[in-house]
Amino acid sequence: MKKIEVVQNVLEANETIAKRNQQLLDKHKVFVINIMSAPGAGKTSLILQTLRTLKDKLNIGVIEGDVASTVDAEKVQNEAEAVVQINTRNMPESCSLMAVMIESALKDMPLDKLDLVLIENLGNLICPAEFTLGEHKRVLIASLPEGDDKPIKYPLIFVDADAVIINKMDLLPHVDFDIAAFRGSVSGLNPDADVFQISCKTGQGIEQWCSWILQQVESHAMKR
Amino acid sequence: MKKIEVVQNVLEANETIAKRNQQLLDKHKVFVINIMSAPGAGKTSLILQTLRTLKDKLNIGVIEGDVASTVDAEKVQNEAEAVVQINTRNMPESCSLMAVMIESALKDMPLDKLDLVLIENLGNLICPAEFTLGEHKRVLIASLPEGDDKPIKYPLIFVDADAVIINKMDLLPHVDFDIAAFRGSVSGLNPDADVFQISCKTGQGIEQWCSWILQQVESHAMKR
Repeated sequence: MKKIEVVQNVLEANETIAKRNQQLLDKHKVFVINIMSAPGAGKTSLILQTLRTLKDKLNIGVIEGDVASTVDAEKVQNEAEAVVQINTRNMPESCSLMAVMIESALKDMPLDKLDLVLIENLGNLICPAEFTLGEHKRVLIASLPEGDDKPIKYPLIFVDADAVIINKMDLLPHVDFDIAAFRGSVSGLNPDADVFQISCKTGQGIEQWCSWILQQVESHAMKR
Repeated sequence: MKKIEVVQNVLEANETIAKRNQQLLDKHKVFVINIMSAPGAGKTSLILQTLRTLKDKLNIGVIEGDVASTVDAEKVQNEAEAVVQINTRNMPESCSLMAVMIESALKDMPLDKLDLVLIENLGNLICPAEFTLGEHKRVLIASLPEGDDKPIKYPLIFVDADAVIINKMDLLPHVDFDIAAFRGSVSGLNPDADVFQISCKTGQGIEQWCSWILQQVESHAMKR
């Protein structure tokens, strides 16, 4: 039973720091979206498309989470107002970004200049579901080549998502993926999730996704 | 420092049970391969192709690891000699199969009737690198749509693999993936890894992969 206690303590400590992060963000009027997916589903590509589409409307910072390397941060650094790289190590407990890592990263961000921060979580469909970071919205990307059974196999991360993005729509003619079945599984787990069908490669659906972001940022600002 | 100690204890306990698993397997002359990948890279499809190709040569059991659901076990149950499903839960520490789960699963397998057990690990490129299960060989599947930068971003799981499979070769005309760059990154991290280019959809490369398995099983049997 000891192991469970340790895990519970880690999750509770994470929750406390996540709340502190959100208070800091709200004080500076910064909206934060936590972007999660399996490896290679298109988190960095989505962030790049979002930066390019919204750069005249919002000042956007990016926190790049990776086990190793800075390749993603290098890709976005010319498009974003500010970029902070977090490299976790290959420790079994670092299979997700954690609130304490975001707390550190926010210290390196010009919060007063920013409207929106996009967090690219580690490529993983298991752990990030458990660790809130202080974000206002959680977005999950699923991509067609992964198959339409992911909601059945990794349910928790779908249950907690505010939006689910189906990426790589350009590959639809070449893979077996039943969009209706996937959407049905998602709405069974999470009827309130907004679902977008996009292709970061062709630009399909990016406008609707960016409109959703603008709505979220505005409605959050009005509530405060 | 407490957290690190706990993690170390978990890994050491895992290692002890993994060694015990391997002793049991060697006693019963069963060879075990641990198959790892990101979600949707094709672990179940590879297992199905392997079962179909080798069923006249080896008696094969399968251990299916999933966070939730039994869809993979259902897919393979008609082709394998024996199938055991492990469902981990959405606990942060269960982002990999662990040796203790395999110890339980092996109790439900007819070991005296089997030559080979294929373990399908959870879809994750981080945690499974840390947890040995008692397997004789570790195989990592990377699939083209994930992108060619995975060895740079998730190095540890590549360092420890005995074989790396590049799956979904049929999608090569439709995705940006530099095979030479990927193979270069893999051999930089792990010059001894055997690399196979396959498509579970078209059957490309399956014969070479199955020949590799037969060689491994035979050379292990000769050493004992």
